Amino acid sequence: MDQMTLELTQALVSRRSITPDDAGCQTLIADRLKAIGFAIHHLPVGDVSNVLAIHGQSGPTLLFVGHTDVVPPGVESDWQSPPFTPSIRDGRLYGRGTADMKGSIAAFITACERIAPNQASLPFRIAILLTSDEEGPARDGIAQIAPQLTSYLSSVDYCLVGEPSSRNQLGDTIRVGRRGSLTATVTVAGKGGHVAYPEQVDNPAHRLSQFLGELADTTWDTGTDAFPPTSFQVTHLETDTHTSNMVPGSAIAQFNLRYSPALTHTDIIQRIETIAHRHIGDDQLSLIWHLSAKPFSSEPGALRTAITQAIQATCGIEVEANTAGGTSDGRFIAPLGAEVVELGPVNASIHQIDESIDIAELDQLSELYEATLHRLARLVRAPNQ
Amino acid sequence: MDQMTLELTQALVSRRSITPDDAGCQTLIADRLKAIGFAIHHLPVGDVSNVLAIHGQSGPTLLFVGHTDVVPPGVESDWQSPPFTPSIRDGRLYGRGTADMKGSIAAFITACERIAPNQASLPFRIAILLTSDEEGPARDGIAQIAPQLTSYLSSVDYCLVGEPSSRNQLGDTIRVGRRGSLTATVTVAGKGGHVAYPEQVDNPAHRLSQFLGELADTTWDTGTDAFPPTSFQVTHLETDTHTSNMVPGSAIAQFNLRYSPALTHTDIIQRIETIAHRHIGDDQLSLIWHLSAKPFSSEPGALRTAITQAIQATCGIEVEANTAGGTSDGRFIAPLGAEVVELGPVNASIHQIDESIDIAELDQLSELYEATLHRLARLVRAPNQ
Repeated sequence: MDQMTLELTQALVSRRSITPDDAGCQTLIADRLKAIGFAIHHLPVGDVSNVLAIHGQSGPTLLFVGHTDVVPPGVESDWQSPPFTPSIRDGRLYGRGTADMKGSIAAFITACERIAPNQASLPFRIAILLTSDEEGPARDGIAQIAPQLTSYLSSVDYCLVGEPSSRNQLGDTIRVGRRGSLTATVTVAGKGGHVAYPEQVDNPAHRLSQFLGELADTTWDTGTDAFPPTSFQVTHLETDTHTSNMVPGSAIAQFNLRYSPALTHTDIIQRIETIAHRHIGDDQLSLIWHLSAKPFSSEPGALRTAITQAIQATCGIEVEANTAGGTSDGRFIAPLGAEVVELGPVNASIHQIDESIDIAELDQLSELYEATLHRLARLVRAPNQ
Repeated sequence: MDQMTLELTQALVSRRSITPDDAGCQTLIADRLKAIGFAIHHLPVGDVSNVLAIHGQSGPTLLFVGHTDVVPPGVESDWQSPPFTPSIRDGRLYGRGTADMKGSIAAFITACERIAPNQASLPFRIAILLTSDEEGPARDGIAQIAPQLTSYLSSVDYCLVGEPSSRNQLGDTIRVGRRGSLTATVTVAGKGGHVAYPEQVDNPAHRLSQFLGELADTTWDTGTDAFPPTSFQVTHLETDTHTSNMVPGSAIAQFNLRYSPALTHTDIIQRIETIAHRHIGDDQLSLIWHLSAKPFSSEPGALRTAITQAIQATCGIEVEANTAGGTSDGRFIAPLGAEVVELGPVNASIHQIDESIDIAELDQLSELYEATLHRLARLVRAPNQ
């Protein structure tokens, strides 16, 4: 196989695109796509770069979604080779973004380039939407562009997200949804004072511990066919003083729930507020909620079938479809009625020092995307095949 | 009445004796006591000053215990007048140490000075033991000297501690014991990680909350006739990370118990370790204990009777004898077999900005100490009176 995917990945990784800086990645990509007939729409929002590329005027749409931004590299001297100088060692390409997810973008683009001569025969349009704000607040990226897509595309039917979904081997896992994410900061006001005068204090750390202890013991749901049970995790605890003979005046915790569509965020908030009031007086309690993602999931459809068949053919393995992991930009596309599936490389090194991807995996991923497009074409032409 | 107690208090308060610095207080006092026949023994330990003054060679001993050190003044500019420049306003003397407890020391010394002409007729020796390490670690003060007292005194029978015991009015409260104080630092090691992968984490904040929640719900004892129930207070909570999507790797708390003699510290440690093991694995748990004071209490005896009668006569009120408040140096004297009673001024302003004492209270306290010595003399001569 040629080195097209490797070379494009190297070109992207050498651009220091830490959120929200795109560092020229999208221009490079747009030029490549324009050359094979894509129409390019740059759609910046504030300091975030977004680009939408469309090939074809009519028919259903397959939308590839990805991000050109990467998480910060951490201490650069901890890397074996500089994070933004792509380096090959022992058959692997090292650099920030190689796995999450410049490799996926490069693989999809080279797949499109190989398909280009025959693209007119495909029974769907191909569109590509990239943002430089996925790893950051994710406010000015796909969240902003998704509602505008109907101005450019009559419909979004299939959405392939290039996030690194694979666990041990390319294609072993795809994501067909993601849990919701709900965070709360709880502050318990009490009455501090000297420990020797317990009748004069009201210890907020006691009330907080009892509240969190009950939350940690709670079974929220049993999940759904596609989703694991809702999980609750305390992420922070603190008190306002640290003197061994003083009762603190207030105690603070933060916690997060990853929740399945078996529950809504309002169900959860209501249940937690009921539990809170068993332990903490109304005038002592502050609960500030932040809903960062609602859950989404896609029923099995043509895209999932196409990907499953392509993985069997290309990788020779059976795929597991699940809804694990963090949130993804797929959550903004699902509400448009699209079938959303995430497929990308092995995620073992993402967000870490010495992030890397197997060079053979880059080529295999490009083949896999190409095979997915061909399988999907057949399924769209003859849905009952 | 003359101004002897006020003047001596002023002289002591003007010496900046922040623990462990005595700043010359004990030399000043020793000179006054030497003048009325006391033998002086300076007993420094490290940078701590201790002085033992003894009047008389034989008989039972009444030992007055006090401290010349004071707690730091905090932000000096927050005081209405400088903390080490004693100032009189509206009948009150302001300055660090006026109430805790240079006023008590001055009051006892002036009482001794008035009694001096007739001291030979008292049926007991008077001894005075002062340290400059009560407000600090309390390691090199009375704790060190108490075991040596038998070299100087055949016995210590009655111990009058000048700590500010009164709540609203001089003489309304005396202390006849103190609770024990036991502190623990608990560290729970868990397995941190991303909140989106609950199966890969073991949240130490959950285990800690459940553990502390159960401790806060526990009834330790019902107290004794002299002691309130044992109380438990969490003083600190913290986790090692503060990122809303990360489960912390460890969680730490500190707590303190003020406990009655109905329990020993080993009883408490055993009960808490049993509860801990219900929530936290042995290899995840670290519990570090610090026993800062064992409880002590004195049965009603001649000293308590003498003080009760003196308060009725001098202040015209009934006294409440209790065991509340923090620890005191009385805990080091009680094991010698002495009856320990604490009597001093109103404690409302101690350790605070603008600490102060009522000037009339200074004189009344001196009278009260003098009356106590006279009443005790009668009771020692005729125990059944």
